[in-house]
Amino acid sequence: MAQQATASSRIASLILRILTFILLLISLIVLATNTVGSSDDDSKVRFTDFYAYRYMLATIVIGIAYSLLQLVLTIFNIVRGGDGMPFLDFFGDKFISYVLATGAGAGFGLTVDLKRLMDASEVDMLNFDDKAFASASLLLLAFVTTAILSIISAYTLPKRV
Amino acid sequence: MAQQATASSRIASLILRILTFILLLISLIVLATNTVGSSDDDSKVRFTDFYAYRYMLATIVIGIAYSLLQLVLTIFNIVRGGDGMPFLDFFGDKFISYVLATGAGAGFGLTVDLKRLMDASEVDMLNFDDKAFASASLLLLAFVTTAILSIISAYTLPKRV
Repeated sequence: MAQQATASSRIASLILRILTFILLLISLIVLATNTVGSSDDDSKVRFTDFYAYRYMLATIVIGIAYSLLQLVLTIFNIVRGGDGMPFLDFFGDKFISYVLATGAGAGFGLTVDLKRLMDASEVDMLNFDDKAFASASLLLLAFVTTAILSIISAYTLPKRV
Repeated sequence: MAQQATASSRIASLILRILTFILLLISLIVLATNTVGSSDDDSKVRFTDFYAYRYMLATIVIGIAYSLLQLVLTIFNIVRGGDGMPFLDFFGDKFISYVLATGAGAGFGLTVDLKRLMDASEVDMLNFDDKAFASASLLLLAFVTTAILSIISAYTLPKRV
């Protein structure tokens, strides 16, 4: 029974980790390609012009690196039949989910008001804000999957200690 | 030994909950009193003009309500000598710490870039951005104490199930 619960929680974790990785990757692509205007004049707007989006980028990259590490370790454990590292899972998932939560918060916090200010001043942002919004939404979804992973790893922790 | 560990983790939790409550209360006061300009003209800037600060306010109020509930329950359990509610602690601390993390993220995400935009356009914000920054910093500290509480309640959970 305990063996079965561990096996099913492992499969759930693996699926959630793959999902997190895909969400973060798309979020990264949408954010990084978010540039408006030509490079000839000063009107060009890049995501790097805003600190909040730079922070978002940092959290996404950290999230992708952690997801890749966990995917490699999980596949390694399935092949080798090891017990995994419950402490790495517990603290890693917790820490990364907080990092992604603050990243999504920063992204939305700036984008929502930026959108309103731009609409009010009738500046044409050419979907700059919409793309930022899409990227932040994907980051939020990745945070939710990591938060679920964090609950699973908290439950898996005590059985092994 | 287990009894002792539970007692010390309970005292640590109580201190952290009181600290969280105080931090959130000061953060609320700083944010809610953040108004610049006179009410006669249109130049008045309130924190409610920005969606990110409204969201911050909501997360702070939720955090304060939860802290108060937990403080009452903790004192009730100490007096009555009960076992407490490990599941409420586990999911409550986890959920509230995520709420506070996104609130702090939204607050910083807007404030950092708002400050830069205002400095660049030489608009005098009369410390509006500094007070928002202070409020977000206090919220961030409250998030850290709640994250520590969440680790403690994850460790306390399995002993009782």
